[in-house]
Amino acid sequence: MFGCLVAGRLVQAAPQQVAEDKFVFDLPDYENINHVVVFMLGTIPFPEGMGGSVYFCYPDQSGMAVWQLLGFVTNEKPSAIFKISGLKSGKGSQHPFGAMNLPQTPTVAQIGISVELLENLAQQTPVANAAVSSVDSFTEFTQKMLDNFYNFASSFAVTQAQMTPNPSEAFIPA
Amino acid sequence: MFGCLVAGRLVQAAPQQVAEDKFVFDLPDYENINHVVVFMLGTIPFPEGMGGSVYFCYPDQSGMAVWQLLGFVTNEKPSAIFKISGLKSGKGSQHPFGAMNLPQTPTVAQIGISVELLENLAQQTPVANAAVSSVDSFTEFTQKMLDNFYNFASSFAVTQAQMTPNPSEAFIPA
Repeated sequence: MFGCLVAGRLVQAAPQQVAEDKFVFDLPDYENINHVVVFMLGTIPFPEGMGGSVYFCYPDQSGMAVWQLLGFVTNEKPSAIFKISGLKSGKGSQHPFGAMNLPQTPTVAQIGISVELLENLAQQTPVANAAVSSVDSFTEFTQKMLDNFYNFASSFAVTQAQMTPNPSEAFIPA
Repeated sequence: MFGCLVAGRLVQAAPQQVAEDKFVFDLPDYENINHVVVFMLGTIPFPEGMGGSVYFCYPDQSGMAVWQLLGFVTNEKPSAIFKISGLKSGKGSQHPFGAMNLPQTPTVAQIGISVELLENLAQQTPVANAAVSSVDSFTEFTQKMLDNFYNFASSFAVTQAQMTPNPSEAFIPA
């Protein structure tokens, strides 16, 4: 039903089914992964009113699984690209894989897909900046980066009264 | 042998084979496409010493096909993510699909894959900023954007001698 592709590697089309509605792909050597594509194979659609929440799971320093919600796939939007580099220091979020005790290996992460009611998915908030499949999220990301840069640069702002006299130093109006 | 996935849409795994060594996927409604994933299905590898060059083809205003080299897939790197939004105003490049006269429809673009000797691929230069599968290209892109922003902001730089007296206006040291 699902496929998973790490950019640069071979596609995976056979997830481990860990429960009736839960599927898991292993991501070996996950520290060297930047982008992951999750997609429906097109063979079996979701049942009416259902979709999939997509989680990234990686071991923290003590070997415990940390889960982060990346986003969703649905019959209407059956694929998505996620950027997982940069997420590895984030905090875990609530997830539906709690009781499954996936074996954790230091270099292996997982993509978990949980089939749920669309109305449940609508109440879940993915981690920021993971989805790269739409111009909107990319634009938002660059906007945020420029905002951060502006805030950083503005922290050095001075008024004319605060300036040490120096005729050659250039200043940019804030 | 190849699959093609537009982020947000269903995967395509059956390209049109337009020559023994040339494969084409149609991309309907290409103006609304941001990212395209091209990958080997994992069933048949390239012959020893061969790989695939990946082209984006779209119709220009007069309906002529414009081809741009996005990058490569090989047995060692069997998948890649490309950002095609932003390429549409670029110039065409040399390509090996010349004699094929693919029918052009205003809203339909193509992904073309040409199987060639690896030593030929090594001499071809893809368009800038198309590959998004590595952190390097992403970092380069954001670095370039910040450089552009710095150059833009610096164009407003003034020295103290050039300032109109105004005690409340804030300035950032360049």
